Amino acid sequence: MSERVTLASVADEAGVSLSTISKVLNGRADVSPDTRDRVERLLHERGYVRRGTGRAEAHAELIELVFHELDPIWSMALIGGVEAVAKEHGLSVVLTVNGSRHEPDPDWIDGVIRRRPVGVVLVFSELALEYRERLQARAIPFVIVDPAGDPSPEVPSVGSANWSGGLAATRHLIELGHRRIAAITGPDDMMCSHARLDGYRSAMTSAGLPIDPDWVRWGDFHLDGGRDRARELLALPEAQRPTAIFAGSDLQALGVMDAARAAGLAVPAELSIVGYDDIPFTRWVTPPLTTVHQPLRRMGEEAARLAIRLNREPAASTPRMDLATSLVVRESTAPPPVE
Amino acid sequence: MSERVTLASVADEAGVSLSTISKVLNGRADVSPDTRDRVERLLHERGYVRRGTGRAEAHAELIELVFHELDPIWSMALIGGVEAVAKEHGLSVVLTVNGSRHEPDPDWIDGVIRRRPVGVVLVFSELALEYRERLQARAIPFVIVDPAGDPSPEVPSVGSANWSGGLAATRHLIELGHRRIAAITGPDDMMCSHARLDGYRSAMTSAGLPIDPDWVRWGDFHLDGGRDRARELLALPEAQRPTAIFAGSDLQALGVMDAARAAGLAVPAELSIVGYDDIPFTRWVTPPLTTVHQPLRRMGEEAARLAIRLNREPAASTPRMDLATSLVVRESTAPPPVE
Repeated sequence: MSERVTLASVADEAGVSLSTISKVLNGRADVSPDTRDRVERLLHERGYVRRGTGRAEAHAELIELVFHELDPIWSMALIGGVEAVAKEHGLSVVLTVNGSRHEPDPDWIDGVIRRRPVGVVLVFSELALEYRERLQARAIPFVIVDPAGDPSPEVPSVGSANWSGGLAATRHLIELGHRRIAAITGPDDMMCSHARLDGYRSAMTSAGLPIDPDWVRWGDFHLDGGRDRARELLALPEAQRPTAIFAGSDLQALGVMDAARAAGLAVPAELSIVGYDDIPFTRWVTPPLTTVHQPLRRMGEEAARLAIRLNREPAASTPRMDLATSLVVRESTAPPPVE
Repeated sequence: MSERVTLASVADEAGVSLSTISKVLNGRADVSPDTRDRVERLLHERGYVRRGTGRAEAHAELIELVFHELDPIWSMALIGGVEAVAKEHGLSVVLTVNGSRHEPDPDWIDGVIRRRPVGVVLVFSELALEYRERLQARAIPFVIVDPAGDPSPEVPSVGSANWSGGLAATRHLIELGHRRIAAITGPDDMMCSHARLDGYRSAMTSAGLPIDPDWVRWGDFHLDGGRDRARELLALPEAQRPTAIFAGSDLQALGVMDAARAAGLAVPAELSIVGYDDIPFTRWVTPPLTTVHQPLRRMGEEAARLAIRLNREPAASTPRMDLATSLVVRESTAPPPVE
């Protein structure tokens, strides 16, 4: 069945003209929402996918990058990665800020469909089924970059190895000789908080070390959360008080440093601290922070590469990858004080 | 004379077809560089400007933002500002990283011409006459955002008040009671280094305070420059040694803090430090940094607004503006120690 016949039958069934179908396919605004929904649904039911989309003729030389917010800490490295790969392929990057932490707003997709980019990189946890279908029907591939660590299983995604990062951070402290190690992780509605904490647990358990329930705290990934939870940890009775804290994020690590200063504890001589993320300022604080490097730039690069590849050759199965994290040892960790 | 007649006569004189002229105007690649140069020159000599460019029909719903590099410190706020204004106007942002600190590479402009955006915001000091003419001939307005502080007088530009910033930083120290105040400014090939230093000089002079030539140092706007120059300043004989340092940039201020620590001086009790920029981490360091806020986000917003406005109504004279800077007092400054 040819593309033309499919479209004609959809037009027939929807009771609209072929030109209306074409407007819907091209994301034009002059179609009523009702009509558009009806046509979209029929296109999907018939399994319509635009054919013959050789990139040169059918796609603009653009790759789209959509954030829910521009964060001074996270976004720059992701943008840099996407931009570098786009340039290699002669593409320009269209940047959109839109939606909530979980998914983009409805109006976002119309712009993408009008522009017909080579592919879309979304920094979100989710992409609703409706959007996936609308992009798929136009052969516009998309990839989710999800630093929060919980993309849904049906979407192509690039993440990073949160569990391994928590493991490496904790192992480093164990190797230095620490036994009483606490963990402050992120909010409990983000899967990366769970993954990092699980890595901590596995490192402790496999080293035969007990985990006092008081040593595990849920934070907010911000400075205040780190400071408040560390204050609680440092107020524990001396025999129970941790000599090292895995802070879950670099901002929380700064908060832990503040709490240590307020408690009159020297870092790292009396308290070791490991952060997570390796954001730019970690090397400028005093002492420079030992942390887990999250490969944000490489995540942006891989997501862009994957979107471009999916445009050329659709994948048989959903491609998903987690990039490796690595420990960066600086000066905020040392052996524990002699007791 | 109609647009068509102008183009026909250019085609005639250049010895090419009207379709070749049209290819040049649309930035198509299938024209030899020689032919393109000849046609561009003739178009400029005839004062050709594309007519009837109502935005809806002639310009894509895009605004272009071109950087020479994505810097984790500067770029994010500028991008955020441009993006917010673009969204207000229903435009998407195309982000390009290209060229050197001073101007974009030649290939950059072909993409812009093909895409025909509403306007272009360039984070560069310069835009060569050739590019200006090519954009002007196609009625694509551009605005330079120049944190380095030295845009050429013929281009629309948005900067910030570097001189006033240097003045405010130094006045703050004078009001606290400091008399021996040193300044570390940036590299001497950037005009903003000169402007900030001149602000320092004016504050000192107008308060009747002498400036010891040893107190003025040229840095590099990075941490190392701040540390090295501060080390020299703190090694001066005690009666000559400054009690306060205007550090010229936040990164240099961090370097000054390091040097103070190494010299065993408490900040701010024994040495006051003022930064410049107000980049995100300045509130997280210990002590939080007193600094001059550079309105990068607003610079991005104003540049985007100006580009959009120039698209609707070309300006009679070249619009240029410097946005105000403001002092943010935190905890790195205090009265000088009693002597």
